[in-house]
Amino acid sequence: MKTLQTIGERALIERLVSRLAGGNDVVVGPGDDCAVVRAGEEDWLLTSDPVIEGVHFTAAADPVQIGHKAVARALSDIAAMGGVPRWALVDVVAPGETEATRLDAIYDGMAATAAKHGLVIVGGDVAQGPVLELHLFAVGSVPRGGALLRSAARPGDAIYVTGTLGGSHISGRHLEFVPRLREGQWLREEGWVTAMCDISDGLSTDLHHLVDASGVGAEVEIATIPPSDAARTTDDPISHALEDGEDFELLFTVPADKEDAFAAAWAQAHTLSCTRIGTIRTDRRIEGVDPEGNRAALTVAGYDHFAGEESQS
Amino acid sequence: MKTLQTIGERALIERLVSRLAGGNDVVVGPGDDCAVVRAGEEDWLLTSDPVIEGVHFTAAADPVQIGHKAVARALSDIAAMGGVPRWALVDVVAPGETEATRLDAIYDGMAATAAKHGLVIVGGDVAQGPVLELHLFAVGSVPRGGALLRSAARPGDAIYVTGTLGGSHISGRHLEFVPRLREGQWLREEGWVTAMCDISDGLSTDLHHLVDASGVGAEVEIATIPPSDAARTTDDPISHALEDGEDFELLFTVPADKEDAFAAAWAQAHTLSCTRIGTIRTDRRIEGVDPEGNRAALTVAGYDHFAGEESQS
Repeated sequence: MKTLQTIGERALIERLVSRLAGGNDVVVGPGDDCAVVRAGEEDWLLTSDPVIEGVHFTAAADPVQIGHKAVARALSDIAAMGGVPRWALVDVVAPGETEATRLDAIYDGMAATAAKHGLVIVGGDVAQGPVLELHLFAVGSVPRGGALLRSAARPGDAIYVTGTLGGSHISGRHLEFVPRLREGQWLREEGWVTAMCDISDGLSTDLHHLVDASGVGAEVEIATIPPSDAARTTDDPISHALEDGEDFELLFTVPADKEDAFAAAWAQAHTLSCTRIGTIRTDRRIEGVDPEGNRAALTVAGYDHFAGEESQS
Repeated sequence: MKTLQTIGERALIERLVSRLAGGNDVVVGPGDDCAVVRAGEEDWLLTSDPVIEGVHFTAAADPVQIGHKAVARALSDIAAMGGVPRWALVDVVAPGETEATRLDAIYDGMAATAAKHGLVIVGGDVAQGPVLELHLFAVGSVPRGGALLRSAARPGDAIYVTGTLGGSHISGRHLEFVPRLREGQWLREEGWVTAMCDISDGLSTDLHHLVDASGVGAEVEIATIPPSDAARTTDDPISHALEDGEDFELLFTVPADKEDAFAAAWAQAHTLSCTRIGTIRTDRRIEGVDPEGNRAALTVAGYDHFAGEESQS
């Protein structure tokens, strides 16, 4: 059984790079000090995402799925701005006793998901460390001025989410999710959206991020939140839908006067569900409203990488 | 004493981001799904570099220097292609019990070095993990087709190194080095260079990388290799100069017919030393030649992140 220690750094890099596909506009791929890429007159989206054993996946996780997740998390960020995936680098950290075939399978998973979405992995680096980690750095593009920001929601806008929410770690979906690139690009091209982000930390947390960035508040009709099948297997599907992390669905706002036309256009263009869950308001609080009209503050309760007493709000 | 656990993820990110400077051409900085940047008609250089506690720095290292090193390593890769630094993202991995002021100081170090060289840190991510790590992802630019590659050395070219080599971990220089951006850009603009890379794994290893990428070999005049003052304090300065990692000097080749003009132009333009250490040859081996004319194969003996029996050559 070959481990990274027996193979050595250079042969390891050659072995991993051989698993990646090339692509257009790549002037120099892996192997030099930097990758060199070429693009036209666009705005560029830059995002980085760490995927760490014990945090984002367990030691028992399927390595192909680990690779998928590492790439798909970065793609979800590009989707959340309406972007088109272009290039990526990956830093791999691994203990020396890691089996080489495990990294091979992770790279096969990364390569398959990257190729499926037009992302070209053009380089990266490897280093030794105590646990397995992948750090994806991805570049996407949008037409000049076209990026959909989280900071542009306006009072009166309707709030939507794609798909269903919660239970991603119950069902294993966090290792298999489809980044919403097609939907994100469509929302940008068709001009429906005022503000958008992806749901990575949990609906309640990411809604706080969006309204805080926009300087507004929100009212959420709790009964309209769409829990996933996995969340429905629990005692409290709505709490799971509000608080569980790693849904990687889109959260976005549409002006009130476009709501009807938007709903019809969405239904025609997509099989993925899209649900109206509330309304942006001027008052900078987020309230949930139940079918009886009872109101309660919606707190930040999603995943916090360094949760502590000062982070509760 | 505040640790990352007591502060929480969001307040931590706000605290760290506040230490970074903004910059031109940044449409959207930290806080959204991606950063958005804008650039003209250029080729783009993409590079990633991990800096890991226990591998690239010790737990006792000055945090400002750790931050400097993380940024300077990425800048050295951009320098090695003759590039101009533009934007960067940083992934931070840290244990929850990390003191917040330690990360503050690391960010101050990153921000100071980035600002000094025109690099704008536009975003990144944080996650919890067993040891402190920084992953820098940097973007540089060159005019179309202008990147200086390691794969373009030709038989007869003279081989040069900047500065002095070896002993970087003896002197602490690996935490303080100056990325050779000015020299790299000058070499590109003046058109002297056929092939170039930085010396990160040690002269012998990086020379192997350069000649292998170019499909050539090299003859190195051992007595001309310039050991650093720190290497000179050892029993075997030349071995340290050949084999120690993290010099972050430039290694490059100049056509034989330009040698004299190049040496004069360099002396006029730079205070940094530049030393001719050998010649590229057709035969795909690397030999060292001592002043008595004795020849020996120069093996790969620099730093290997996963050194093992199969990696020796």
